[in-house]
Amino acid sequence: MDMERLRFAHRFDGISGSAIREIFKMIAQPGMISFAGGNPSPAALPDETVDRIAHQVLQQDGKAILQYGATEGYAPFLESLKTYVEQEIGCQVPAVLPVTGSTQAMDLLCKAMIDPGDVILVENPSFLGNLQCMKFYQAKIVPVESDENGLLLDRLEEAMAAYHPKLLYVIPTFQNPTGKTLAYDRRQPIAELAAKYGVVVAEDDPYRNLRYAGVGGPSIKSFDKEGWVVFLGSFSKIISPGLRVGFMAGDAAIIRKCTMGKQSTDVHTANLNQAIVDQFLRQNLLPEHIAEICASYREQLNAMLEELDHFPEGTRYTKPEGGLFVWVELPEGLNAKDMLEKAVANHVAYVPGTHFFANGGHENTLRLNFSNSSVDQIHTGMQTLRTLVEEACKRK
Amino acid sequence: MDMERLRFAHRFDGISGSAIREIFKMIAQPGMISFAGGNPSPAALPDETVDRIAHQVLQQDGKAILQYGATEGYAPFLESLKTYVEQEIGCQVPAVLPVTGSTQAMDLLCKAMIDPGDVILVENPSFLGNLQCMKFYQAKIVPVESDENGLLLDRLEEAMAAYHPKLLYVIPTFQNPTGKTLAYDRRQPIAELAAKYGVVVAEDDPYRNLRYAGVGGPSIKSFDKEGWVVFLGSFSKIISPGLRVGFMAGDAAIIRKCTMGKQSTDVHTANLNQAIVDQFLRQNLLPEHIAEICASYREQLNAMLEELDHFPEGTRYTKPEGGLFVWVELPEGLNAKDMLEKAVANHVAYVPGTHFFANGGHENTLRLNFSNSSVDQIHTGMQTLRTLVEEACKRK
Repeated sequence: MDMERLRFAHRFDGISGSAIREIFKMIAQPGMISFAGGNPSPAALPDETVDRIAHQVLQQDGKAILQYGATEGYAPFLESLKTYVEQEIGCQVPAVLPVTGSTQAMDLLCKAMIDPGDVILVENPSFLGNLQCMKFYQAKIVPVESDENGLLLDRLEEAMAAYHPKLLYVIPTFQNPTGKTLAYDRRQPIAELAAKYGVVVAEDDPYRNLRYAGVGGPSIKSFDKEGWVVFLGSFSKIISPGLRVGFMAGDAAIIRKCTMGKQSTDVHTANLNQAIVDQFLRQNLLPEHIAEICASYREQLNAMLEELDHFPEGTRYTKPEGGLFVWVELPEGLNAKDMLEKAVANHVAYVPGTHFFANGGHENTLRLNFSNSSVDQIHTGMQTLRTLVEEACKRK
Repeated sequence: MDMERLRFAHRFDGISGSAIREIFKMIAQPGMISFAGGNPSPAALPDETVDRIAHQVLQQDGKAILQYGATEGYAPFLESLKTYVEQEIGCQVPAVLPVTGSTQAMDLLCKAMIDPGDVILVENPSFLGNLQCMKFYQAKIVPVESDENGLLLDRLEEAMAAYHPKLLYVIPTFQNPTGKTLAYDRRQPIAELAAKYGVVVAEDDPYRNLRYAGVGGPSIKSFDKEGWVVFLGSFSKIISPGLRVGFMAGDAAIIRKCTMGKQSTDVHTANLNQAIVDQFLRQNLLPEHIAEICASYREQLNAMLEELDHFPEGTRYTKPEGGLFVWVELPEGLNAKDMLEKAVANHVAYVPGTHFFANGGHENTLRLNFSNSSVDQIHTGMQTLRTLVEEACKRK
């Protein structure tokens, strides 16, 4: 191919592959202790149950499952999903749409709302994959500052007033990448600000059920009186990411636009995958399964926090009550991106924090995932990282 | 929701829901004989085999199948798919990408190539779903005329010279909606025109294996020396549409851009669905299954053509050698869109042809699907339609 004659669309200008996925390739070697991904533990993946259920649904409704389905969703799942969502988020929702992983929910919401140059407010840092999604829609991404309890309300209102944004993207519980939870008393004000300024809120809450301490609280959506909040959910962390089943729930007009967008994207989410999740809900398998996952993840998180306690002075880190990630700020002047190569050479991987900031910087930060490593691996890997940080501190 | 404050993206301006999908809803009632969809026959859906294979792959590789996969595809499937594609289309392909139904292939190709206002050349008429997809990318859709053997080469070259298009979209075999096959001696010239004018060709060929008469010939892709032709394929018509597994194959740089686009769309196609199709290929189940499907579809097509032979003088229709559709032109002055309501009241449905033309018009045309009705239903339904056409002719 003569690359000079091949004219790609401008939405790719300045976009490279996802940094995380490139790191995945670098670390795909035996013996690597990876704190880099966001993968569930293999032990958390219910392969025997899925096997049993797949057989069951194909026996019961095989012809319909293999036929084209409605973009709106597989009928039995639509029913069980609506009940599930309303219980989860503590309010009624006018419409739900099953999607091919909650990544697709973000894509469809951008498709519905964003013209090039439109502003999306995001937490700073935020989830890399969805920042990339927004860039493909040529949005102007404006970060809003947080403290240890999530988005700062005065900064948020300033940004809404100044930029007249189309969307606010927020991960309220055990945020990716920081592990922070948005204070429950900031949630009603955010719903009210959204209505005041006419901003659609994408409340992306895939980690909410992975709680190892403390108690949960209301969703932003539960305070939404006019329909500005769209709740994005996922079964990736509590059943399986490989099945690619998520959902969005909210105002009927917004969901309708997303449904139209989905018609031209993948027509519908695969029926078999919807039917499998439907049976997890109908057979009420989630509570016990989630309890099992959480028992194990709790130990893994605690092992990681214990090790971080021994890191050199000046190291700061979050102490999440759940989720999959711990966020680390190394002593000033250290560079987590530079350190990564040495870490990988020593069989430990993580994601440098700079990638999660809309405008880069913050080179002394990194994101650590604990769900995909055993407690032993966590101790070993964290001790390796501690040694590297200690050496870097000495060189400073 | 105060709809005046809700600001949707301009890509929805002038887009309504897919006309076909709206018709689907209208006809979802018992006793309806539907020639409207493009659904495989229930008998063609291998539910028992999928059940057996799902169990097999979940037993063998369940943990990997339920985990996140690579955007590039499930490794075993990537291997079997490449072999399959190369055998099917008679040439080597530098890269393949499994996608969530071949609808997603079109979406990703537009995402990679199309800025608002860019020109896409299409057959006239063409597949409604993908015309809708192009509209979402705010492409300028320019139809190119065909004769009974598909695209007219001189018109195609004129359009390439005049519009400097980014893409040409063509369904070469048993086209949707006309059932026409692009003459095999026009395929090399199209590949050469694409290279001459620097136009990417989307060769969308989901019906190629559904052949009931005659012999096939080379793909456009097989004449492609520089990489301008991207081949889009689907397992929807030969295994199951509900599984949502298709693929695209072509130049590595183009597939790479589509892969990056897919990262932000659904991360990857569900592994279970890829693994199931992988086993259909590895266990060599397709030839026998396709032969079974074709034996039945051949009888259904023949029943429909037999009935059309008795339609009023002035009725013209295609006589396809395969695929799922017959295209009918009613006598001049008749209106298939107006007639639909009466047909549905008499329990017969079809899609008015006007929906498939980029610029509308052609109100006397309609598309008939024969795969999803029994031979008896075809006789009954076509006799109903014939009566309606006869009545309309009398009123003229």
